[in-house]
Amino acid sequence: MDVDAVELIAAMAERARIAAAVLATMSDSAKARGLEAAADRVRVAAADILAANAEDVAAARTAGVSAALCDRLTLDPARIAAMADAIATVATLDDPVGQVIDARTRPNGLILTRTRVPIGVIGIIYESRPNVTADAAALCVRSGNAVILRGGSEAVRSNRAIHAALVEGLAAAGLPVDAVQLVPITDRAAVGAMLAAEGAIDLIVPRGGKSLVARVQAEARVPVLAHLDGINHVYVDASADPAMAAAIVVDAKMRRTGVCGAMETLLIDRAYPHASALIAALSAARCEVRGDAAVCAMADVAAAQAADWDTEYLDAIASVAITDGVEGAMAHIARHGSHHTDAIVAEDAAVAERFLGGVDSAIVLWNASTQFADGGEFGLGAEIGIATGRLHARGPVALEGLTTYKWIGRGSGQVRG
Amino acid sequence: MDVDAVELIAAMAERARIAAAVLATMSDSAKARGLEAAADRVRVAAADILAANAEDVAAARTAGVSAALCDRLTLDPARIAAMADAIATVATLDDPVGQVIDARTRPNGLILTRTRVPIGVIGIIYESRPNVTADAAALCVRSGNAVILRGGSEAVRSNRAIHAALVEGLAAAGLPVDAVQLVPITDRAAVGAMLAAEGAIDLIVPRGGKSLVARVQAEARVPVLAHLDGINHVYVDASADPAMAAAIVVDAKMRRTGVCGAMETLLIDRAYPHASALIAALSAARCEVRGDAAVCAMADVAAAQAADWDTEYLDAIASVAITDGVEGAMAHIARHGSHHTDAIVAEDAAVAERFLGGVDSAIVLWNASTQFADGGEFGLGAEIGIATGRLHARGPVALEGLTTYKWIGRGSGQVRG
Repeated sequence: MDVDAVELIAAMAERARIAAAVLATMSDSAKARGLEAAADRVRVAAADILAANAEDVAAARTAGVSAALCDRLTLDPARIAAMADAIATVATLDDPVGQVIDARTRPNGLILTRTRVPIGVIGIIYESRPNVTADAAALCVRSGNAVILRGGSEAVRSNRAIHAALVEGLAAAGLPVDAVQLVPITDRAAVGAMLAAEGAIDLIVPRGGKSLVARVQAEARVPVLAHLDGINHVYVDASADPAMAAAIVVDAKMRRTGVCGAMETLLIDRAYPHASALIAALSAARCEVRGDAAVCAMADVAAAQAADWDTEYLDAIASVAITDGVEGAMAHIARHGSHHTDAIVAEDAAVAERFLGGVDSAIVLWNASTQFADGGEFGLGAEIGIATGRLHARGPVALEGLTTYKWIGRGSGQVRG
Repeated sequence: MDVDAVELIAAMAERARIAAAVLATMSDSAKARGLEAAADRVRVAAADILAANAEDVAAARTAGVSAALCDRLTLDPARIAAMADAIATVATLDDPVGQVIDARTRPNGLILTRTRVPIGVIGIIYESRPNVTADAAALCVRSGNAVILRGGSEAVRSNRAIHAALVEGLAAAGLPVDAVQLVPITDRAAVGAMLAAEGAIDLIVPRGGKSLVARVQAEARVPVLAHLDGINHVYVDASADPAMAAAIVVDAKMRRTGVCGAMETLLIDRAYPHASALIAALSAARCEVRGDAAVCAMADVAAAQAADWDTEYLDAIASVAITDGVEGAMAHIARHGSHHTDAIVAEDAAVAERFLGGVDSAIVLWNASTQFADGGEFGLGAEIGIATGRLHARGPVALEGLTTYKWIGRGSGQVRG
């Protein structure tokens, strides 16, 4: 472990803890005003941010990075305006802090409430998208948390310019400047130090590709909210409406193939009478189909290999298997799923409820596309990410997922005696 | 890592996962009947359990273990009856599984609910108290979780007898026998394998002394619900009622000195006019007082050393400091507290609310003794433990803390388009 990086992160986390203590008792409106001011400063600083970004993009081109990465890295006036608007929108969301989850008065008169409080210090580790700097900071501050941001090295100048604008706005509105800190070094040792900062950083949220998330999950001593894979299934039951099934399957796979909510595997009930038409609909939508033996017997498609059932294609490819009813589908999902999002298409409500109850995923859907797996679509306003772990928060994680609770007891001299 | 232990735990966890899937969709009444049957079998098997326990106690005496451990290990007919009653009581608690945390209908007609579900597979690591076998199993099964129990080697015969009775009862009521499994080996490698079983075991709850909890927290790759220390403070504000302050302070320290909710440090506002009387009340209750310079100047007590402020005595000893008002008390707690339970005694409501909002502990109390830190006293029925971490569950953790949630969406053909 790099001693300098460990000391740097420890010092940042200590300042963050002090800022978090201030934020924790700030009013809803004070935090909202801070974010509005931050959004304004981002708008005002647009030219500075664009200049810094141009340097990042030029350096990335010189270094020969991929066109896709350059695109993610590149800002323009519209993207900066969208970034500022997103911060302002987060300011309008309901503040979860202070919400009373439950209240009870004990026979001895002690009044107990469980009240939402911020988690404390959140670490965000992300790659080349500079807008994450603004998005993640806004969500953390809105929920009363201090945040330590560690962006990708390609975006270092952009991130510094955005961070400077954010902090200027927060400070102008009276929020602690250490509420949003950007790790000033870009070598990987800083990531290692964040992942090891047990007790100093309370939660890590990785935002980026699978290799980043995998490293974070493998190394972290700090709890992590994330998903690694979205190997999502749509199961079409014998009772499904054929038009609905085709529409949902094509949307779930093809609307956007690169999102984590995309369907990767289609499971068709052996008793479903329109399997060939369903596979044809996928092929007609320009999806490559890889089928099991039963599928290959009914359609001219490639044979799936064993690895296909465990593959997140994030592309216009779907593996398709025939299963024995809902129990067969559930067994397949239990073996190959990634606990992200799985859907059933069925008219039979009992079958659907069996699936919704029995599939162990963060999101289970009946007669709807898996592509709804998104905090905005769920009405949460914005999301910090989607989590497939079992504890604390599952599925789209928004402001509430960035809080925890404390027990508050108000008495009148009660002793246990 | 011991390969045999790793394989053993992996195989147990795989069976537990299958049992958990069955339990997850079992009805409230089926789980309750299972626990009632388990309680009955424990009563019926009392003689067998006592015989096994007598062998454990004899072996422990031969091995020269401490009298305190022998006492914790020893069962008698009354303790077995209490164990069975505790299981039957858990059967009467409300089942959190299936509770809808929130429900929303999206503009497109998609109906979303967040619904409580079991966590899955829980590992309990404990020491010599055989009743934990029954308690922990009952709480896990009631909340729909499968459990892997790893008790202390001194209690191995007792635990096997209790486990056999529990499983007999569960099986007779139609619950899966793998819902409650006892690790058959007692060497420490089994603990290491459980702590490393990321993804196979979802949550570890250590039940025992500080060295056990410290080892579990240091080594675990699986999330842990626990508390290491209960360095709890009572702050007596200038506005406190003197009689109430003395009653709460003496109860918080002396009611039971060995429990995690006991006060360890008393903080007195410099402006409180009855500090000497308060310290005298502690001394009169046979508590050893270790004071800071200001305390030593007003009472004939020992001087506290630096380490005292970070010590959980679990004994009739209290460190006492004079602070500058509530802000000074909060600064002391932020520096030395363990995020367990802290209390303020004050008549000034604004001061009290400042403390309740600003102290970052799982439980904060106003005008009540810290010794209320207990799931039963909180009206939760029973607790699996008290957690001082920030995520998932804080303070007394009962059935609800052994659940998580899933998002269930019910649609009518919605696609994102």
